[in-house]
Amino acid sequence: MNPNTSLSAQQHDVKALELLRGIKSPADLKQLPIEKLPDLADEIRDAICEQVSLTGGHLAPNLGVVELTIAMHYVFDFATDRLLFDVGHQCYPHKLLTGRLDLLGKLRQAGGMAGFPEPKESPYDLFSVGHAGTGISTAVGMARGDSVLGEGHRRVATIVGDASIVNGVAMEGLNNAGTLKRQMLIVLNDNGMSIAQPQGGMAQFFDRMRVSSAYGEFKKRARDMIKRLPYGDLIEEAYHRAGEMMKAAVFRGHMFEQFGLMCIGPVDGHDIPTLIDLLNELRDFDRPVLLHVKTVKGKGFDFSESDATAFHSPKPFTVEGCRVEIKKGGRSFTAAFADGMIDLMDRDEKVFGVTAAMPDGTGMAKVMDRFPQRTLDTGICESHAMDMCAGMARSGVKPFFAVYSTFSQRALDQVFQEVALQGLPVRVCMDRGGFVGGDGAIHHGFMDISMFRVFPKVALLAASDEPNLRRALEFMRQYDAAASFLRYPRANVPESPISETVPPYELGKARLVQPARGSRPDLAILAYGSEVYEARDAIAQLERQGYDIALYDARFAKPVDTALLRELVSANVPILTVEDHAVAGGFGAAVLEACNDMRLDTRGIYRLGMPERWFYQDSRDNQLAAAGLDAAGIVRRTRAILDDGDPVHVVAGATVGATKARR
Amino acid sequence: MNPNTSLSAQQHDVKALELLRGIKSPADLKQLPIEKLPDLADEIRDAICEQVSLTGGHLAPNLGVVELTIAMHYVFDFATDRLLFDVGHQCYPHKLLTGRLDLLGKLRQAGGMAGFPEPKESPYDLFSVGHAGTGISTAVGMARGDSVLGEGHRRVATIVGDASIVNGVAMEGLNNAGTLKRQMLIVLNDNGMSIAQPQGGMAQFFDRMRVSSAYGEFKKRARDMIKRLPYGDLIEEAYHRAGEMMKAAVFRGHMFEQFGLMCIGPVDGHDIPTLIDLLNELRDFDRPVLLHVKTVKGKGFDFSESDATAFHSPKPFTVEGCRVEIKKGGRSFTAAFADGMIDLMDRDEKVFGVTAAMPDGTGMAKVMDRFPQRTLDTGICESHAMDMCAGMARSGVKPFFAVYSTFSQRALDQVFQEVALQGLPVRVCMDRGGFVGGDGAIHHGFMDISMFRVFPKVALLAASDEPNLRRALEFMRQYDAAASFLRYPRANVPESPISETVPPYELGKARLVQPARGSRPDLAILAYGSEVYEARDAIAQLERQGYDIALYDARFAKPVDTALLRELVSANVPILTVEDHAVAGGFGAAVLEACNDMRLDTRGIYRLGMPERWFYQDSRDNQLAAAGLDAAGIVRRTRAILDDGDPVHVVAGATVGATKARR
Repeated sequence: MNPNTSLSAQQHDVKALELLRGIKSPADLKQLPIEKLPDLADEIRDAICEQVSLTGGHLAPNLGVVELTIAMHYVFDFATDRLLFDVGHQCYPHKLLTGRLDLLGKLRQAGGMAGFPEPKESPYDLFSVGHAGTGISTAVGMARGDSVLGEGHRRVATIVGDASIVNGVAMEGLNNAGTLKRQMLIVLNDNGMSIAQPQGGMAQFFDRMRVSSAYGEFKKRARDMIKRLPYGDLIEEAYHRAGEMMKAAVFRGHMFEQFGLMCIGPVDGHDIPTLIDLLNELRDFDRPVLLHVKTVKGKGFDFSESDATAFHSPKPFTVEGCRVEIKKGGRSFTAAFADGMIDLMDRDEKVFGVTAAMPDGTGMAKVMDRFPQRTLDTGICESHAMDMCAGMARSGVKPFFAVYSTFSQRALDQVFQEVALQGLPVRVCMDRGGFVGGDGAIHHGFMDISMFRVFPKVALLAASDEPNLRRALEFMRQYDAAASFLRYPRANVPESPISETVPPYELGKARLVQPARGSRPDLAILAYGSEVYEARDAIAQLERQGYDIALYDARFAKPVDTALLRELVSANVPILTVEDHAVAGGFGAAVLEACNDMRLDTRGIYRLGMPERWFYQDSRDNQLAAAGLDAAGIVRRTRAILDDGDPVHVVAGATVGATKARR
Repeated sequence: MNPNTSLSAQQHDVKALELLRGIKSPADLKQLPIEKLPDLADEIRDAICEQVSLTGGHLAPNLGVVELTIAMHYVFDFATDRLLFDVGHQCYPHKLLTGRLDLLGKLRQAGGMAGFPEPKESPYDLFSVGHAGTGISTAVGMARGDSVLGEGHRRVATIVGDASIVNGVAMEGLNNAGTLKRQMLIVLNDNGMSIAQPQGGMAQFFDRMRVSSAYGEFKKRARDMIKRLPYGDLIEEAYHRAGEMMKAAVFRGHMFEQFGLMCIGPVDGHDIPTLIDLLNELRDFDRPVLLHVKTVKGKGFDFSESDATAFHSPKPFTVEGCRVEIKKGGRSFTAAFADGMIDLMDRDEKVFGVTAAMPDGTGMAKVMDRFPQRTLDTGICESHAMDMCAGMARSGVKPFFAVYSTFSQRALDQVFQEVALQGLPVRVCMDRGGFVGGDGAIHHGFMDISMFRVFPKVALLAASDEPNLRRALEFMRQYDAAASFLRYPRANVPESPISETVPPYELGKARLVQPARGSRPDLAILAYGSEVYEARDAIAQLERQGYDIALYDARFAKPVDTALLRELVSANVPILTVEDHAVAGGFGAAVLEACNDMRLDTRGIYRLGMPERWFYQDSRDNQLAAAGLDAAGIVRRTRAILDDGDPVHVVAGATVGATKARR
């Protein structure tokens, strides 16, 4: 496929990636004359677009930074200099320029190219990063660290997006970068787009800025520039040292100037010669500089430029003539959540929906279309969003904050102080609980139970399928004793749910899904969330093998169903807890603690969850299998328990031997 | 005591708080003529200073906002309007104006006045708050919430300090406040001081601003003001609606203007008539406004103005003539940590010390004096500080981040992605693990084990006394397989440690402190951190009562000492785990999980920790007693276990019955 034959804004002249194939490392790039670099950019775009069309992945963010990445590698030497990415979903061009073209064919798959920077893949990737806004802070750390160790000659650069820079840790980083007394370059990649539309006052500020100066203009302006000096001693001193071109490009009144940074630009992020020229002047400057670059998200193809949100991270797609079609998946938990929210908001006008820059990812986009007055996108500001929800709850509104499980980690302290300690009923709907597939280790939701379980009176729920998701949302709407946290996976809802109608959620009560055939089952599985379906499939196999297993949908990780636990343990029924969450401190741990508190024998309690190691990019199904959390794994573990007393299993990465049989 | 008879900058005329005693609510305040308000301010200062001199508490922050608080209550009606505090350690004047003079005598004590805003105390306190930077975000939430519910007539105001505003959640809040299309007032209380010296580029910006306009000047400037319009449609529109005085006070080029806020000031925060006049103009303005107020931290007394850091939150002190003396406490864990760090840094030049605005609270001030080149204060930016440490560790430096346990919650996501996932050996030294006494529920360190335990390979340690603290620090210096987290309490180190010399920390190994007298103890106590000493005292009592108890210093909550657990359980020795941490997911839970993984019988394992409820202000000793974590509580629990099989105890706030004896 050559996606740009008819669609591209520019007519590329691509000869089977002949330039790109010659680049085994950035040293090869530096051998190319500047005039060849636009051709290289075209090749990079084609390679990325073709691959993403086949496997899905981040497209528009990568297309936007091709020239910028080329220029950075052309000017710096990141074999010794330091390049820190921010979110990192714009790292594909960087990976292709650092010898990883061969990995591209297995993008976001096991053994292939990770979708985010990954130190295990290359020494050119310093941090694996997929949570926004961290690049400036790690760059400040490396700048200080290198200087302390006498390695201050290593230049430090970071690339941060205009959506990321409004995140708290990014702004904290900017404020501290301003105190550095050495070289550090912050490139603000401003494409005027967050993952979706930008939010907040700062976005409006960026929006007012226009690229005013191309290469030639700078030179001209350098001669007759206004002599007014910028604020502050540090900048003033820095300014005096700046080269002529840089001086001309200084943006007086840039909001970040007041953080103590000399600000340059905005400049056109697709004009390679200007970028190289400027970066050459900036490269060795001995004070922190912010280079404001304007880029076009999705640059290079009509379809991705005109709908950069849809092509931010598309599923596989096809291009035929003028028709571009993204493959449809099945019905996701995300879609089911959106419809559930709409239903809730139809019935209760106090319900309010919030997202932090993930309207599409969380399904809130559909809700926002329907209820523009009772929904809000805060931008990438999970801490703020949680506190805003706390304030709304204090007013009497019922806020539902839809957020990825992994990003809820950013709001832990706000959940503590502004939500839990106040006893405020903020509702947190955590998408992508458990394994997330291709995004890999940076995005699994593996600690939402352990970190929130510690707060008094909060309810932790999971939804195993769409009928249960509906019931869970309704439970949350009514639960106003404290906060509630619902989790559901990055997966499709089961097409044929076990029951189309399920009873309402009742605080701390599990639901019997499949009773044992006999009066006393060989074992009871308590599954949390979507693992109910893996367990169901496992039980089907186990029954054929002659075992009699009862299946419960646990529904709550807090509080757990103590009456059920007491009943099962008293009847000497072994219990296997199954969860798509870290086994340490998770649902099974809560079961264990509750039984210990009731002085029950826990030797018949077995826990199955995500083992204590990192899981890298792969399909969600493969990740579940690797963790033993698919049906086959549940069968294996159940048989190990029933046949051998679960003699040996893996804990915390180490194999632990255990007594052979119950004493 | 009248502390200002000889020391005050102004000569007050105080008649036994005659004005203050007449104010039962802000309605009474509004009856006073403006001319009387400076006298009221003097009375408030005297009342606060006298009380803090007796019991300790926050002094300088409160002295700085007396006039501002009076003016706010004079102009707004916070019976219906909303007042959101930020950190909240400057809330004493607010409390005195809202009918809580009677509680002042028991400041920060049980049944007395909380040291921070506390909704349980008064409807005028909307959030209990002691972590910085949250006020703007909760204010945005209440503003939106009230508007959604048709209560938009309720005005919303928040007071935020110049040190707090650099925190990530505050900047996220500012950015989002700029998008509000209704009234909201942000008062920036700029005293040019953080808790210690301010840090970062923004602080330099504030430092350049001078109060330029007193009341009369504003009126004058209103007539001949420059007509240049500020940036942005929203502000432009807002500007057109502003009153003359407000227009004159608009600060063009204020950094927060670029967040979409109309910025007013800086104005003199001690000039009551100007403040009232301005607030009257601002009160009903229908767009978000930031009022920049310059105040003097510690205002009113020579000693507190000249050393606002020492008098930020002093212990009890005496004033005699010109001599002001703060009572000395014993030697704190904080002081022991500082000396331990200095020793480490003397021996290893790669060690680097970091604090986030807590140089005095964490003891880093002493370390910074000694090693100015290898220490850094980032300001109130825990997220940034953690990422900066990650960057330094990537460079090869050995960063030690000294932070309160409760504030480490702010860096959880950074610990996840930038530290743990990268396997970087960042060292986190968590002061104030466990109960903190007078600061109350907002500051206990109760979840540092449960939230960090989930990460592969990290080490969680505790120090029971100074010799162990030294050994723990040395272990961390050498441990480079992953991050390590050390906790120690807000308490003095034991004057006579159990051993002056203790063996080195060995990963995952507990230390036998007191063996049983016989060959098999009646019970083994595994105590984590300073609870070793409570357990030691308990055992002294229990031995007199005829029990034979072994005592272990657990040292590690991760990994736990599995060999020891196996040995004890195999020998049928009951185990009581004791920790100054939430019982859910804590050290005892880790023990329970490890035993379950080893298929050991856990019926002989008993867990004692902080029960699942909030603990409010009181002495640390009383809090430990209330949680059953003092020696007496350990005696009670041990006897309940050994005499009655621990028949009933309290779990998660509910009483749980258990089987009478072991089955």
